[in-house]
Amino acid sequence: MATYVVGVDLGGTNIKAGVCDERAQVLTKLSITTEGQRGPEGVMDRIAEATHLGIEQAGLRLADVQAVGVGAPGTIDFDAGVVVIAPNLPGWEDVHLRAGVAERLGLTTVIENDANAAAFGEYWTGAGAQADPMVLLTLGTGVGGGIVVGGELLHGASGAAAELGHTIIHFGGRRCGCGNRGCLEAYASATALVARFREAVEQGAESVLAEPARSGGEVTSEGIYQAALAGDELSRKMMEETGVLLGYGIVSIVHALNPQRVVLSGGMIGAGEMLMEPVRRTIAEMAFPLSQRPLQVVFATLGGDAGFIGAAGCALQSSATSA
Amino acid sequence: MATYVVGVDLGGTNIKAGVCDERAQVLTKLSITTEGQRGPEGVMDRIAEATHLGIEQAGLRLADVQAVGVGAPGTIDFDAGVVVIAPNLPGWEDVHLRAGVAERLGLTTVIENDANAAAFGEYWTGAGAQADPMVLLTLGTGVGGGIVVGGELLHGASGAAAELGHTIIHFGGRRCGCGNRGCLEAYASATALVARFREAVEQGAESVLAEPARSGGEVTSEGIYQAALAGDELSRKMMEETGVLLGYGIVSIVHALNPQRVVLSGGMIGAGEMLMEPVRRTIAEMAFPLSQRPLQVVFATLGGDAGFIGAAGCALQSSATSA
Repeated sequence: MATYVVGVDLGGTNIKAGVCDERAQVLTKLSITTEGQRGPEGVMDRIAEATHLGIEQAGLRLADVQAVGVGAPGTIDFDAGVVVIAPNLPGWEDVHLRAGVAERLGLTTVIENDANAAAFGEYWTGAGAQADPMVLLTLGTGVGGGIVVGGELLHGASGAAAELGHTIIHFGGRRCGCGNRGCLEAYASATALVARFREAVEQGAESVLAEPARSGGEVTSEGIYQAALAGDELSRKMMEETGVLLGYGIVSIVHALNPQRVVLSGGMIGAGEMLMEPVRRTIAEMAFPLSQRPLQVVFATLGGDAGFIGAAGCALQSSATSA
Repeated sequence: MATYVVGVDLGGTNIKAGVCDERAQVLTKLSITTEGQRGPEGVMDRIAEATHLGIEQAGLRLADVQAVGVGAPGTIDFDAGVVVIAPNLPGWEDVHLRAGVAERLGLTTVIENDANAAAFGEYWTGAGAQADPMVLLTLGTGVGGGIVVGGELLHGASGAAAELGHTIIHFGGRRCGCGNRGCLEAYASATALVARFREAVEQGAESVLAEPARSGGEVTSEGIYQAALAGDELSRKMMEETGVLLGYGIVSIVHALNPQRVVLSGGMIGAGEMLMEPVRRTIAEMAFPLSQRPLQVVFATLGGDAGFIGAAGCALQSSATSA
């Protein structure tokens, strides 16, 4: 008899859910609004709704489902099954998410943070498939991470592991959103790319985007990438530099963890080889030969589905372990 | 019936060996010269001699011993049981250390690299006892590391994990012995402390050690520490700076691994609080509160015995797993 699990990716705007079998095949997936203004209890009702909807769409019954996994934003106390704080969800402080969902559904429930869930998704069935160790870096407005060692997510002593965006690559350097100076995120996130671009323009560099940058108009990482593609010199230089800076952070991660695979995900991977080439070159130049031997650096393949798939995978793993 | 294991710490000059019981009690220990000039076969003979000597000193017979663990310098291929290269041991290239020792002794043999063995020693019975995750940093002429997750050493995909001295804390910065720029080792090792001190003197800084530094005389990290104790301003500043720089590296490690304990070992920990205070202050200022909650930063307690004790612990763990 096949085993089915439900994965839920809880976001500030939408809840994505899907049903997977034990071989990571997605039977069905869906997205509904989070309705965060309804507060934690209301949002947990929505999670239950999404789960029921998914099970129905898949042509299954609740009894066919072994467990549900929920990937949630914010800080999680894994032992207690509690979301300690989730900045993007109004009123989410010390929310007993695991118990709340388990009660509503009558199903074994596992919770995970969203970056870890995405990492586990890529490990289970995406670009990181079965690599050991596997490291995921999410490159978006911030830089997030997930680490899988021996097939298990590394949580650390208080569930705070894999904050890889806050690897210090240049002490005393650029100010990061976290308050520190010199974090990888302050150099290689989409936000940092735009900030570095604006600074270059302010210092007089020429670019087709110089005018909007100077007049306070919108400049995005996507816009910089498109300008680079169209031959804009500064944009190309900035994209290249982002890859090198990211490479420095990955070299530190490679020396610490000796991963078999580093998976890059998030919006910025849309830049493709323009980003990947300088990343790989920097690693080739700096990482120890023995560390490089097994190493692959690749792009994620699950896109926005990684979160719910990974949450489902965590649910499967947890129910297999406890069975 | 008690279980006994032998641990061997293979160094360029001496071979240390000891016999431990399954509760990490050291029954006896000894040290003999390595006689590296005899080449790999000769050195493996010496390892066997040290093991027999230890067993005899402990009043045991070979049949009482369950396994032997050998901590070796250099690069190790764990699957093959081979020392790929050991720069401090003449002729050590692709040496089948595990098979060589096992044949000589007729005992199950486990090999480990020396930094990992020391880390496991501190985890088994020293300052890192049973912490999860536990990270060891060895502060000497270089900066080495070891990582224990879930009670097991993290080897990584090719046995190259925990090269924590080559965490990049300042890209484009000081040149490291490894050829890269900006490594933690290039800032916070004993060698780097002396180099930074000499540079400060060259730039005109005053110190009781300025004269020997300028005239190319011997300046050591120990000498700088002693001068700092005696009130030398520059020496004190350099010691303090070393702690801060080390702190930057530890913050990156803490954000990646969320360790329960970071253990500092090696010659430099002789500086005690003068080193520890700025380390702890930097972590307190920069590490995320959730990561700090379970974190302890402490000095190693096993000193030079960590290597053979850890090697013995690895032997015990391995034989328990395979039994």
